[in-house]
Amino acid sequence: MNASVREQFPILNQEVNGHPLVYLDSAATSQKPRAVLDAVRRYYELDNSNVHRGVHTLGSRATDAYEGAREKVAAFIGAAHPEEIVFNRGTTTGLNLVAASYGDANVNEGDEIVLTPIEHHSNLIPWQQLAKRKGAVLKYIEPNPDGTINVEAAAKVITDKTKIVAIAYVSNVMGVVHPVKEIGALAHKHGAVIVVDGAQSTPHTKVDVQDLDCDFYALSGHKMCAPTGIGALYGKKALLEKMEPVEFGGEMIDEVGLYESTWKDLPYRFEGGTPIIAGAVGLGAAVDFLNELGMDNIAEHEHKLAMYAMRRINEIEGLRVFGPQERKVGIVTFNLDDVHPHDVATVLDSYGVAIRAGHHCCQPLMRWLEVSSTARASFYLYNNEQDIDRLIDALIRTKEYFGDAT
Amino acid sequence: MNASVREQFPILNQEVNGHPLVYLDSAATSQKPRAVLDAVRRYYELDNSNVHRGVHTLGSRATDAYEGAREKVAAFIGAAHPEEIVFNRGTTTGLNLVAASYGDANVNEGDEIVLTPIEHHSNLIPWQQLAKRKGAVLKYIEPNPDGTINVEAAAKVITDKTKIVAIAYVSNVMGVVHPVKEIGALAHKHGAVIVVDGAQSTPHTKVDVQDLDCDFYALSGHKMCAPTGIGALYGKKALLEKMEPVEFGGEMIDEVGLYESTWKDLPYRFEGGTPIIAGAVGLGAAVDFLNELGMDNIAEHEHKLAMYAMRRINEIEGLRVFGPQERKVGIVTFNLDDVHPHDVATVLDSYGVAIRAGHHCCQPLMRWLEVSSTARASFYLYNNEQDIDRLIDALIRTKEYFGDAT
Repeated sequence: MNASVREQFPILNQEVNGHPLVYLDSAATSQKPRAVLDAVRRYYELDNSNVHRGVHTLGSRATDAYEGAREKVAAFIGAAHPEEIVFNRGTTTGLNLVAASYGDANVNEGDEIVLTPIEHHSNLIPWQQLAKRKGAVLKYIEPNPDGTINVEAAAKVITDKTKIVAIAYVSNVMGVVHPVKEIGALAHKHGAVIVVDGAQSTPHTKVDVQDLDCDFYALSGHKMCAPTGIGALYGKKALLEKMEPVEFGGEMIDEVGLYESTWKDLPYRFEGGTPIIAGAVGLGAAVDFLNELGMDNIAEHEHKLAMYAMRRINEIEGLRVFGPQERKVGIVTFNLDDVHPHDVATVLDSYGVAIRAGHHCCQPLMRWLEVSSTARASFYLYNNEQDIDRLIDALIRTKEYFGDAT
Repeated sequence: MNASVREQFPILNQEVNGHPLVYLDSAATSQKPRAVLDAVRRYYELDNSNVHRGVHTLGSRATDAYEGAREKVAAFIGAAHPEEIVFNRGTTTGLNLVAASYGDANVNEGDEIVLTPIEHHSNLIPWQQLAKRKGAVLKYIEPNPDGTINVEAAAKVITDKTKIVAIAYVSNVMGVVHPVKEIGALAHKHGAVIVVDGAQSTPHTKVDVQDLDCDFYALSGHKMCAPTGIGALYGKKALLEKMEPVEFGGEMIDEVGLYESTWKDLPYRFEGGTPIIAGAVGLGAAVDFLNELGMDNIAEHEHKLAMYAMRRINEIEGLRVFGPQERKVGIVTFNLDDVHPHDVATVLDSYGVAIRAGHHCCQPLMRWLEVSSTARASFYLYNNEQDIDRLIDALIRTKEYFGDAT
């Protein structure tokens, strides 16, 4: 990525606490390039209308924009059909839909649901709740000591009793890529489906849901240069077609009587109410933006940055990095000895460096790591080595500040 | 409203099919003023970050912006506490939440749910589904011959068996204001709660949920000058506090274990996952915009426009208007003899006049009116008498076009 990429993100061109902003919190949410902001604005200034139901010109334009965005997202993740893409509020809504609709219809008492203890809460609590509703059993794949997950460990818990395996493609805390294709094949061998939490993978790596052969794949726009409040759920057509909607209203119905109603075809039955039209337009523009840069280029850029960050951060004594040394995705999670992660983040902020501190929506993982919280720096396509240098400098000053500059 | 108000909506300054655009489809979705578009853009260009969990400067600014928007919405509809406002995707999501959470916990076999046949599908199907899940009974308040609803008719169906009464404050087809305060008092007398669909009222009239004494009130931002994909559910604190979340993920939890989890306080337990941050900021800006114009002024402007439209439209022979002659809200629904509403809308579009045709997500009402669909012109604060004149001229030409110019 050259400097002109960074210049496309207006927010990065500001000072925070008297220092140029270094934004290292993209795993929480990414910044938005001018192209996405312009596309949304253009939509509102030229085409805004409700979709599908309009017979006037703006209605047609808005519908074309919305359905065009669906086609872009489908192509971006390698879906076979646009109608396999359900627009929604984000990954959380997508995973909850699968748990409530597919889960309630297919999981029964004594059936097993397989997760990892590394999951984000949004790929954990929906399954906990499903298990409670149905009397099903949750089982966890045991991670390796470095926090990676392998197929052998998965094979120990996936059995013929397993109905659903749910796993993140990329961990939001340790930036590790999980072998979801192999685990999916194992799940299929036992007659289970695999649900992939794609929140942290879609922004950073080329995704091909057909190659992965996953049954469901959920993503969030806001982590991949699109607006907040838009996401997409991919589901194999044959599965989605058999599923009941979980939200009911306009646009998702075929016939409505006073006492009975029937549903529209895919994907509309899962999109009740006025859709998130401008959000979808923004997500489509984000997909265009990412495609133009090239997902392989973005992945290579982040891999280099992540390895550079690991090298530099390992130079700091008394700093513990969680997860393996080798990593592809730009997420580095760490703790400084004797300094609370919140204090680390606060001091870093005083130097204009924005990182996150906390449990990162992964309390079970925190317990597995035997910490209450961590600090996390996460990079994206607009970051560069100077940002890492600023992080390292600020971390060294943080150590000094807390009197630990030995 | 003077001409300068209209100039704040960039989309209205365009030609469609060679004619200046006349947008009469605001009941489907409203257009957005520059102030709202600017507020959203400013948020993304200066403050964008994930909320609540950040200890860095952008995170604090984003949280302030998001929570500030909640306070604005609370004040706008007269809620007693900001935490009574749950942000969500829109009215449909709000009504579904009440049906799935409050409904599932409080409605049992043989209990009754009272609706009207005038409801939008989003205030009908969630209750149908609840009734099916619980073996409850749906009952309908019979409208007057002109489509209005009165308390006497409500009193015939609301009994001690009633657990929920759900009704729109304003009909999206006939623009009629329903006596929700009086019906709510009746519901309370029988120990039932009242759920108000505020999608069509909030944009057009001053709302005070404490004065209405409604238990739940759902609204959509996109119909009131805010972006698509943001809405809010108001619920009385004492009720929301006892309700279980229906969507599970980050930000809504207190403690998460591998097998058990607990929830945060209000309103966060109902806002799992990254919130619709910029959407909320846009909704806050829309509230500021509407407050500056004054809701009473907006209501007066629309009332005048509606009455002018009724007078002019009644001059057209062979045109049937649905609903009462007197109306406060700018929605006029009609059919031209012998011309399909879709054809009416298509011909009007060729003159640059955008109206909607169809069942308006109200199939039961269409059956009650004994039509399959209607044409609907709907006005908002940016419309004026010239827009109505353009509508009338185009309707006259439509009649001529279909050879019915008698």
